[in-house]
Amino acid sequence: MKHIGIAIILFASFCCAQEAGGFQPSSTNVWGAEYPRVDSAGRVQIRVKAPDATKVRLNFWSGPKVDMEKQQDGYWTVTTPPLVPGFHYYTLIIDGMEVSDLNTHAFFGGTKEASGVEVPEPGSTYYSIQDVPHGQVREVWYNSKVTGSWRHALVYLPPNYDTQTKDRYPVLYLQHGAGEDETGWIRQGNANFILDNLIAAKSCKPMIVVMAYGYAKRAGQNLSDLTGKPFGSPEMLKAMQEMAAAFEDDVTQALIPYVDSTFRTLSDRDHRAMAGLSMGGMQTFQTTLNHLDLFSYIGGFSGAGGMLVLGDRKLDPKTDYNGVFADPAAFAKKVHLLWLGVGTAEPERMRAGLQRLHNSLLEANIQHVFYESPGTDHEWQTWRRDLKDFAPRLF
Amino acid sequence: MKHIGIAIILFASFCCAQEAGGFQPSSTNVWGAEYPRVDSAGRVQIRVKAPDATKVRLNFWSGPKVDMEKQQDGYWTVTTPPLVPGFHYYTLIIDGMEVSDLNTHAFFGGTKEASGVEVPEPGSTYYSIQDVPHGQVREVWYNSKVTGSWRHALVYLPPNYDTQTKDRYPVLYLQHGAGEDETGWIRQGNANFILDNLIAAKSCKPMIVVMAYGYAKRAGQNLSDLTGKPFGSPEMLKAMQEMAAAFEDDVTQALIPYVDSTFRTLSDRDHRAMAGLSMGGMQTFQTTLNHLDLFSYIGGFSGAGGMLVLGDRKLDPKTDYNGVFADPAAFAKKVHLLWLGVGTAEPERMRAGLQRLHNSLLEANIQHVFYESPGTDHEWQTWRRDLKDFAPRLF
Repeated sequence: MKHIGIAIILFASFCCAQEAGGFQPSSTNVWGAEYPRVDSAGRVQIRVKAPDATKVRLNFWSGPKVDMEKQQDGYWTVTTPPLVPGFHYYTLIIDGMEVSDLNTHAFFGGTKEASGVEVPEPGSTYYSIQDVPHGQVREVWYNSKVTGSWRHALVYLPPNYDTQTKDRYPVLYLQHGAGEDETGWIRQGNANFILDNLIAAKSCKPMIVVMAYGYAKRAGQNLSDLTGKPFGSPEMLKAMQEMAAAFEDDVTQALIPYVDSTFRTLSDRDHRAMAGLSMGGMQTFQTTLNHLDLFSYIGGFSGAGGMLVLGDRKLDPKTDYNGVFADPAAFAKKVHLLWLGVGTAEPERMRAGLQRLHNSLLEANIQHVFYESPGTDHEWQTWRRDLKDFAPRLF
Repeated sequence: MKHIGIAIILFASFCCAQEAGGFQPSSTNVWGAEYPRVDSAGRVQIRVKAPDATKVRLNFWSGPKVDMEKQQDGYWTVTTPPLVPGFHYYTLIIDGMEVSDLNTHAFFGGTKEASGVEVPEPGSTYYSIQDVPHGQVREVWYNSKVTGSWRHALVYLPPNYDTQTKDRYPVLYLQHGAGEDETGWIRQGNANFILDNLIAAKSCKPMIVVMAYGYAKRAGQNLSDLTGKPFGSPEMLKAMQEMAAAFEDDVTQALIPYVDSTFRTLSDRDHRAMAGLSMGGMQTFQTTLNHLDLFSYIGGFSGAGGMLVLGDRKLDPKTDYNGVFADPAAFAKKVHLLWLGVGTAEPERMRAGLQRLHNSLLEANIQHVFYESPGTDHEWQTWRRDLKDFAPRLF
């Protein structure tokens, strides 16, 4: 029977994947897939079968974009230069069509189910599964009156949440970037293992982490047609601001009440944090600084002030964000942590934006942490490191 | 900045997906993707951009396999004949390479992250999200001494599990098919919504559902090299039996103890069920009939006796499965439910196998349920219906 045939194929592959010449299958691969594979220098080999294709191009999003070479057996292959450790998204362009490599699991980014490869970081154990107590990741659905829809979120509960039934926990709201979704921090970021390991080492407090879907449109809202409107046009900026405001309302009016009524949280502002990467960092700034009655810890990972508020100009502490930065002493009393991070290999404009915000905050005497991840780009290794530095400072 | 560009692209698509000529985007699509789309007759339109490809073929696994047509704008399109309602896997073959359609979310099947389309079933609400109390789906990792590895499972907890802290619940172990994994029953099957809706209607008891990863290899085991061994060869059958036995031991020696020590279960055999689809049905028969001390409810969805035990011959109630079927009265006393199901449109050999087992059980006077899903193939709509019929008969 057909399903038996599949069973045998997968069994044969399941048992036979192995290293070859120092290259090991990526931990992101589906069972038994020998490619992509990675060597100790961080070089990645990709191999796909496309016997009738005329051109296949490898497209690492933060890395090499190179043509693959056709072999006589119908396979296309390539070996990249060394990549920095961490998770890397990629797709393939085959005769003009962007596709994923079906040898790996799918990781939602760039508004698609992309492929990914994991380049191990020598000596790093903080973001992989270890023999320590593990929290659980829960899928929840909440009905949002703001968006008029069921919304899906992932919630990390720390180890012993089920057994320590008298304990209540602080909550970190942790947001993905543009093009990603609520699954990113678990699937790509390994946030659950990062928290498990930090908690086991007593480096951070046990906490609940809520990862929400970062796009929102108000119930019944008809957003204007943006067809033909150029990037940065007033119509587009207005529509983006409307989406950002709808997300802010969803978090503060639907998600937080749902979480506080569903889980054993500490529900005061002193026990609520928010952080996000890239677009999620911008959302974090907007949501928290408009609601300092709800939040007291703030993290912007490779994204913070953001073009929606600041564009390319300096922060004006007196007027921006409703003037919350006008009085440094009052701000320090109110906000227990303001944290900014950026990778040193991120695109110049991104680094400059974060650096400019950092400098503005220094000039305004606003206490904050500025963390730079050495050698990493606008990518998950930066954000894993961010979380590792950020979480121990909370609560 | 690049991430802003992505934000705008996804925003533009997020707000603008709409119906066209009676066709609606599939509920499986990524945001804003207008294709694949489905009309009320169940016809599916696919559209992908591949300007330089010479041939693109649509490959529905239980459905049409047809060449797509290239349009002048570089897009390839096709409209299928009507498909039966339900979830359908598909891939595309572009110039000889099998790929997924990046317009849909990814669904793990056939040992790959495949595309899928959902054809609505008119009037059916039992497998979609409704305004009823929802259970949560948890991701857990357990350390198995059998396999010597961390293993990932999904666990459905019924509504109110967290608040009714004195209540204990029966457990259904529910397995995926060959080529799929532990995510299938949630992502493709909507098992959580099926249970939510049945529980809300008081049609079934609140229960815990455990969905495990269905492949196992014993710690340190070196399975023989099957390269070049033909399908059905003694070596391959032996290796498959070893995998099946390792899975059986993992369930009974690692998973069940983990579940019973982690969740508030009713841990006696009268409150433990197991069912599975296709390969999972074979695993269910092997695991439960070898361990009637642990299980008292048994379900085989489009897979049960299976080639590993019966091949194409009739059941011999006196000797097969350690003779558990030899005494019908004793069996009926021990096993509260034996349930078999198959779709009427499944491949002949599959239907014949289930029918033969059904007939053998009738001849042997073994009480059981035989359910036939009208018009559905070896596909998820059959298994959703199976679960809807099976779950209310439990506990």
